[in-house]
Amino acid sequence: MADARTFSLREIAAHLGGEVIGEAAAPITGVATLDSAGPTQIAFLANLRYRSQLDRTHAGAVILGPDERDATALPRIVTDNPYAYYARTVALFNPPPAVKAGRHPTAQIDPEAIVASTAEIGPFAVIGHGARIGERTSIGAACVVGSNVRIGDDTRLYPRVTIYHDCTVGDRTILHSGVVIGADGFGMAPDQGRWVKIPQVGAVRLGDDVEVGANTTIDRGALDDTVIGDGCKLDNQIQVGHNCVIGDHTVIAGCVGIAGSVRIGKRCRIGGAAGISGHIEICDGVTVSAMTLVMKSIKKPGTYTSALPLMPHDEWLKWAVHVRKDAKGETP
Amino acid sequence: MADARTFSLREIAAHLGGEVIGEAAAPITGVATLDSAGPTQIAFLANLRYRSQLDRTHAGAVILGPDERDATALPRIVTDNPYAYYARTVALFNPPPAVKAGRHPTAQIDPEAIVASTAEIGPFAVIGHGARIGERTSIGAACVVGSNVRIGDDTRLYPRVTIYHDCTVGDRTILHSGVVIGADGFGMAPDQGRWVKIPQVGAVRLGDDVEVGANTTIDRGALDDTVIGDGCKLDNQIQVGHNCVIGDHTVIAGCVGIAGSVRIGKRCRIGGAAGISGHIEICDGVTVSAMTLVMKSIKKPGTYTSALPLMPHDEWLKWAVHVRKDAKGETP
Amino acid sequence: MADARTFSLREIAAHLGGEVIGEAAAPITGVATLDSAGPTQIAFLANLRYRSQLDRTHAGAVILGPDERDATALPRIVTDNPYAYYARTVALFNPPPAVKAGRHPTAQIDPEAIVASTAEIGPFAVIGHGARIGERTSIGAACVVGSNVRIGDDTRLYPRVTIYHDCTVGDRTILHSGVVIGADGFGMAPDQGRWVKIPQVGAVRLGDDVEVGANTTIDRGALDDTVIGDGCKLDNQIQVGHNCVIGDHTVIAGCVGIAGSVRIGKRCRIGGAAGISGHIEICDGVTVSAMTLVMKSIKKPGTYTSALPLMPHDEWLKWAVHVRKDAKGETP
Repeated sequence: MADARTFSLREIAAHLGGEVIGEAAAPITGVATLDSAGPTQIAFLANLRYRSQLDRTHAGAVILGPDERDATALPRIVTDNPYAYYARTVALFNPPPAVKAGRHPTAQIDPEAIVASTAEIGPFAVIGHGARIGERTSIGAACVVGSNVRIGDDTRLYPRVTIYHDCTVGDRTILHSGVVIGADGFGMAPDQGRWVKIPQVGAVRLGDDVEVGANTTIDRGALDDTVIGDGCKLDNQIQVGHNCVIGDHTVIAGCVGIAGSVRIGKRCRIGGAAGISGHIEICDGVTVSAMTLVMKSIKKPGTYTSALPLMPHDEWLKWAVHVRKDAKGETP
Repeated sequence: MADARTFSLREIAAHLGGEVIGEAAAPITGVATLDSAGPTQIAFLANLRYRSQLDRTHAGAVILGPDERDATALPRIVTDNPYAYYARTVALFNPPPAVKAGRHPTAQIDPEAIVASTAEIGPFAVIGHGARIGERTSIGAACVVGSNVRIGDDTRLYPRVTIYHDCTVGDRTILHSGVVIGADGFGMAPDQGRWVKIPQVGAVRLGDDVEVGANTTIDRGALDDTVIGDGCKLDNQIQVGHNCVIGDHTVIAGCVGIAGSVRIGKRCRIGGAAGISGHIEICDGVTVSAMTLVMKSIKKPGTYTSALPLMPHDEWLKWAVHVRKDAKGETP
Repeated sequence: MADARTFSLREIAAHLGGEVIGEAAAPITGVATLDSAGPTQIAFLANLRYRSQLDRTHAGAVILGPDERDATALPRIVTDNPYAYYARTVALFNPPPAVKAGRHPTAQIDPEAIVASTAEIGPFAVIGHGARIGERTSIGAACVVGSNVRIGDDTRLYPRVTIYHDCTVGDRTILHSGVVIGADGFGMAPDQGRWVKIPQVGAVRLGDDVEVGANTTIDRGALDDTVIGDGCKLDNQIQVGHNCVIGDHTVIAGCVGIAGSVRIGKRCRIGGAAGISGHIEICDGVTVSAMTLVMKSIKKPGTYTSALPLMPHDEWLKWAVHVRKDAKGETP
């Protein structure tokens, strides 16, 4: 995507801080990687693995850390956290689309809903009875917001999000397409060979500064609420079961499945396609590796793993023989 | 969510059965856990793990089993199945929203569709040619029901469900937001380095009393139909491949992937994020553990597992060395 | 589904090639399996595992390979690739629904969008500013096509697909319901205990002859684009992270999770529910088994596996003891 804006290094630093070294006036038109940047783009060195690319980059300027301040002769911005600086520089060049206050004429907004005058309601959106939509919040096309849902300020629902009744969403939160918040948790009681549905009468509470990826689902609680803390970032296609409570600033990668009544601490990192069994607790500061199953509570911060290493299929067949022997009790 | 209804213990038992012990007239306003219930709420003891909570609960009344009939002095209802009784009590206090017969003026209903006069068709719903919608069935906002689809009575489609052409859905079935029924199965024939699409001309048949969770997908059959039996309960984000046949009253937890042409028996329980390979058969009464891969047919009821136990990452590294030795044939 | 068309064997061969043996004039009304075909249907033998069914089939005719040309007395078509021939025969009897050129009156099409006159735009579809929709392309009900999206010719979006701004989709491509193309990749920079969002300013480019299954998500690139090559076939509920590049004619089964910046070669086959870690490369011609985690780059074609064999749960408990001993360093 072409960046429409131009800033000099001096202007970037005026917005974002950092120390400018070298030519501060040259116009920069956007951000790119060291490998692909052209002479009017600014690149960044956030991972020393890529340091060798610094010598051969065609970038017009570079963002880097204090230890690399003299590693290049290019115009540069020195900052303690080049990766976060890169993030903010991209945002400077690519601000989110402005919210256009107003209601699309096709939107179906219940007369008892309270929609801020600065909010944007897209085509074919449905806003239920008693719902409240905050200031400068954008509800995308074909979203369905249930009755009594409360959505804060400066929040963005991309098209085709569903929020069931009574759920709440905080400020500055982003929900991507296909997200479903507040569908019924998976609760059934066995009775004479059949399953009796347990009505799910809790709700979902999403905090402030949360992001939820495309097609992720977060179920409403059975009796109490499912809670996602402030600053949590959830990737695509995640399933969060009923009554889960996820602590602030925890990040969860794509395809993770979290069963019901799980408590996850603050600042955890859950790897892609991991699974977490129901009714367990994970303390603050835990990292779970990709595709790892957590079956018991984790009480100590650290990294936990249960993934099997990859093998060529013929080696895997040999390994599987050992597994069967161990399982049959044929090995000591 | 505040419960708007009030019942005495006597009235609850009049609706649901069970034996009332103690003060039968006190007003109960809702259901809660032993831990969180207040003096006008009824709690339940369904799992003896929580028995110690009975002594300190602030609940106004308790549902419990015959063995615990004297375990508390609180007003109580004694029943053989306290968990199912709890489910029904929640339903008594929280009946599902009433279906409001009628068609939203924005709904696009094909003139050749047959929609019961007691059915509710939500805003922006699309009902195709030849589709039939049963009595008291609710089609939520932005649902798309394809041509010749048949949906039974007392069924509920939450917003944003898609059902492709020719599929059938039974009575008293619930489909949550984002469900896709009847998309093409994954069928391709290799031909000279390319893939030739095999048109999928079967359909999907969902039984009565089925529930399907948010964003679950069930593909149509290649030539024959994909079939989900009566009383099956599917959680969120499940994938069911083409030509699968799933027996009555089987429950499947979230994120399970089932490849094509799988037969699963009756009353099975498939754990979260399990995977089932194509063209295999699982007999009645099988439990598959979470995140377990079933690669071969299972012919005997029981519990089956293939998940790796969780390890601190440094222990996992040691274990991985053993795996590699076994795979290379370096161990006896 | 009843097939409305009738062809003789001679007519089938006139369309699709192959050698007709036996009665070439008998009317065939559709395609079925050897096991279920009736006397006016044509069956096929593509997998020798089913050869015994040939003797007892009630099919009126059979498609088979040169080695089986004399294996039956039924009227038959002999072809080098019976499975691909079967695929084409099904397509002959079941052509895709015709695209009905025109715009549904409820569709919201930006005046600056360019929609081919032969394209079909369904009810409640939203087409953004600057979008281009090609010839004979069908945009299903409730699809949302963002600004500046380009979609080629003869492509089909089933209902409820979202394509975010600036993405491109090739010719003859099929996107099933619930697909989300171009949502933000999962990019955040840690900064003082919080996460700073990295705006995702790349896009997604889907090639020609691609198929994407229901509820699959493909994220836009951070700076560069995410690219899906020509002829790729993706099943349901797959997650493709930002900046992935997938080579031509690669097939990916359901529930696969692919992290960011992965490069997958041409003509690979990724099994169901497999996971692929970020920033790795898989060369051409690799097969990854179901539920297998790829943590490192694969540089040699072949089949790779990391799934644990299924065990009865009591055997699994014994095996788990061995795992713990190995992990604790208690075994040599």
